[in-house]
Amino acid sequence: MEILKVAAKSRSTSVAGAIAGVIRESGHAEVQAIGAGAVNQAVKAVAIARGYLEEDGIEIVCVPSFVEVMIGSQERTAIKLVVTKA
Amino acid sequence: MEILKVAAKSRSTSVAGAIAGVIRESGHAEVQAIGAGAVNQAVKAVAIARGYLEEDGIEIVCVPSFVEVMIGSQERTAIKLVVTKA
Repeated sequence: MEILKVAAKSRSTSVAGAIAGVIRESGHAEVQAIGAGAVNQAVKAVAIARGYLEEDGIEIVCVPSFVEVMIGSQERTAIKLVVTKA
Repeated sequence: MEILKVAAKSRSTSVAGAIAGVIRESGHAEVQAIGAGAVNQAVKAVAIARGYLEEDGIEIVCVPSFVEVMIGSQERTAIKLVVTKA
């Protein structure tokens, strides 16, 4: 499974398009963000993707959790949003 | 329905406790946040609430959307997270 990594500078509409594409293909997308700015863009992207997919009659829900990731040699706590069809 | 309003300075564990309480009572909670810091705390709170509720065998999912809210005389865009039992 590909993980969609979101940064604070990511455009939420672009991420939304990616989420919608992965959901249409596999019914399941995983979005990862580190830091408030990135988490905000990720959540906005899910909200926008919801609109895109509603047009196709697809409802989505998301489940957030914490994951530890290595950035170089440093461990950081990321937020993972698992997005699935409702 | 009471709306749980989250600020950037809100403690995510306190918000998580409130979400878990409302879910146990009614199966449905609504969380509202304006700005990246607040959205981040809200999402972390849902992730923590998920842990609390798992202990009771309750699974939750959330659906983010945009809502326009009035703060004084100014219209602001908030993120609404509707949290429900899976």
